[in-house]
Amino acid sequence: MSSILIKKATLEGIETDILIKDKRIEKIATEIDFIADKVINAKGKWVVPGFVNMHTHAAMTLMRGIGEDMHLIDWLENRIWPVEKKLDDEMVYWGSKLAALEMVKTGTTTFNDQYWKVPSSVKAIEEAGLRSVQPFVILDQMNTSLSSQIKNDCEELFQLSKGWSDLHTFAIGIHSPYSVTAEMIKWGSNFARERGLIVHIHLSETEWENNESLKKHGVSPTKYLEQLGVLGPEVVAAHSLWLNDNDIEILSKYDVKVVHNINSNLKIASGYKFRYNEMRDAGLTVTLGTDGCASSNNLDMLEAMKTAALVQKAWRGDPTSLPISELMNLATLNGGKSLGIKTGLIKEGWLADISLIDIDNYAFTPNINFLANLIYSANSSCIDTVICNGKVVMEGRKVLGEGEILENVNRLYKKLL
Amino acid sequence: MSSILIKKATLEGIETDILIKDKRIEKIATEIDFIADKVINAKGKWVVPGFVNMHTHAAMTLMRGIGEDMHLIDWLENRIWPVEKKLDDEMVYWGSKLAALEMVKTGTTTFNDQYWKVPSSVKAIEEAGLRSVQPFVILDQMNTSLSSQIKNDCEELFQLSKGWSDLHTFAIGIHSPYSVTAEMIKWGSNFARERGLIVHIHLSETEWENNESLKKHGVSPTKYLEQLGVLGPEVVAAHSLWLNDNDIEILSKYDVKVVHNINSNLKIASGYKFRYNEMRDAGLTVTLGTDGCASSNNLDMLEAMKTAALVQKAWRGDPTSLPISELMNLATLNGGKSLGIKTGLIKEGWLADISLIDIDNYAFTPNINFLANLIYSANSSCIDTVICNGKVVMEGRKVLGEGEILENVNRLYKKLL
Repeated sequence: MSSILIKKATLEGIETDILIKDKRIEKIATEIDFIADKVINAKGKWVVPGFVNMHTHAAMTLMRGIGEDMHLIDWLENRIWPVEKKLDDEMVYWGSKLAALEMVKTGTTTFNDQYWKVPSSVKAIEEAGLRSVQPFVILDQMNTSLSSQIKNDCEELFQLSKGWSDLHTFAIGIHSPYSVTAEMIKWGSNFARERGLIVHIHLSETEWENNESLKKHGVSPTKYLEQLGVLGPEVVAAHSLWLNDNDIEILSKYDVKVVHNINSNLKIASGYKFRYNEMRDAGLTVTLGTDGCASSNNLDMLEAMKTAALVQKAWRGDPTSLPISELMNLATLNGGKSLGIKTGLIKEGWLADISLIDIDNYAFTPNINFLANLIYSANSSCIDTVICNGKVVMEGRKVLGEGEILENVNRLYKKLL
Repeated sequence: MSSILIKKATLEGIETDILIKDKRIEKIATEIDFIADKVINAKGKWVVPGFVNMHTHAAMTLMRGIGEDMHLIDWLENRIWPVEKKLDDEMVYWGSKLAALEMVKTGTTTFNDQYWKVPSSVKAIEEAGLRSVQPFVILDQMNTSLSSQIKNDCEELFQLSKGWSDLHTFAIGIHSPYSVTAEMIKWGSNFARERGLIVHIHLSETEWENNESLKKHGVSPTKYLEQLGVLGPEVVAAHSLWLNDNDIEILSKYDVKVVHNINSNLKIASGYKFRYNEMRDAGLTVTLGTDGCASSNNLDMLEAMKTAALVQKAWRGDPTSLPISELMNLATLNGGKSLGIKTGLIKEGWLADISLIDIDNYAFTPNINFLANLIYSANSSCIDTVICNGKVVMEGRKVLGEGEILENVNRLYKKLL
């Protein structure tokens, strides 16, 4: 059983030792005497939980910068879809390697993915040592003739997932209420419920989607999903941007988890009035995500935290809204809770998903308020060391195989253009 | 005359040599043979102009994190003002040293300051090798008995400024239309016009300010300044957030320069509907600033560029608004133009204010679109080398005296609390 002893890390302002055995935090105490396989001197460094990125399309990191400052439909029809037709397993593998590299460098240890060619992604993420939830994506574009093929493919991937390491969890991805037939939404939901899986769905990302739902079903996308009987605590609803009071009440009633994807929403101009206060007050578990790099360009959770807080304060006209004390939970604990994974807290018995923050730099000076400096002042280059599942995946900002990943991505993207 | 030869830098996609002599860019060509005092191998690095931060209060970097998630009046009355009473020259000096360190690390070479105890700031900025515009700040809080003292102090600082190096320009700061008497606004404006100085003023930062102006003067703050006869091409109007069509027309008529301070506006919840498109279309010179670290926590112009673009797209519901091609000018050339300084372009004859960007990392991979990667994907840790006024102020992210600055700031802030 491997072990790591972190010496003299600062946890919530107090210097402490942290002992990791196998994949969990074994002990947190002022002074731990233990002959560990590895000792990390963390004197002067602060410790925070690894971030949980609750909504992304990791392999799309391969398409970073492929279409900028464009309208959604132009972007989809003229950039993304033509490119996605060319994607092969090698591209998804190296795109996911790049995503994993970026997540490690920016302190994310767990992410909730949604993309194609899952086995190639899982291979890449496994090699990086990160934790992921990997769905089979149901997207039939209302073509009912695809149903039996999709069901077979889903079952096949589910069987394959039994061979994955404990870093990866199989899930059901339902693209959205507007792009999947009611039959397949219900089928996916049942498949997940029978096996205790997460359901990952895009919900009310745009005003257009809401209007379409009203036209077609006479109700909001949320109400429509309720009518289909597919809402429940296993559902992770990405974006959840255009929700009315009744939608929030419904999501709360079923304990649906919501993901705020601030940078993507802003950049594509989907909207910005994410109703954080109302959701929190309704008891909803609110989490954060970056979305994919084709739309929002990076996977940086620290940046997402800052933008989420700033925009929430601005549109509400209330600087006390989404304070730093709540922000950290959105990016860590609430994500773990949503995925049913014991990550997001530095606590004995919890998974050893940990970042060490270097505060010996201008961004953390003066050292009046660590969290304010981390979220509002610093950028992710302050993340010095990252441990995931009890293994060091980055130390002193060095990640194994970095050069090879950059080379392969810069070779492969040219095939997409 | 000192010289620097930058070899094989990438400028707008093309590998090129850049020769700097004294403080200017002497020559840009594919291959330059010259025995320079210093040669920088920039193979694989991209070159961009140093950023121009058009509105900040540098010394307030000493107060980073001092009051978070608070309402403006609570923040001012209970955090900022009590602390500012304790500020002495040593604090302003080290606060400005910290600000300069951060600006160097984040690629800013020129900034438009507004704060107290200017000589201590100038000393700090001079030591860092950065370029600044330093105003005498007129703020009488409508107390007419202060006028003669203020006039004397202003004249005194103006005389002192004649001893400054060519890195620093003296200016007139008029705090705002609501905090300075009409007499002193006009006096400051005349003082500046007679001597060809910039006038740096806060304008329509909040809705409250507009309402007060309507109550007191029957017109908007912009119209009020026009009536006072103080608008002109020398005026730099920070924030300019709550402007109506008529205000924009007026500012355009007088060629007033405007500064967008997005992060500060969001965080204090002053507002977010900065009318970029209307200003641009009216021919206004729009620039970017970070404001001071007490309100917006950092001096990071790359971050300001990204947030400005994202929020502009979002509130307008138009992803094509404020595209990356225009953003770079806001952060560079337009600032230089506003201050009357030949900075913000990599061009022969222009000031050698230059950053070298390291693209050998995840944030610039794939290398499809350099500007998109720089602004939307990377953070300022990609800035490898900074040259200001023909002198290297950072190389390989190393800045002289960094440790000493952090130590002194962490010693001094405790006296403020």
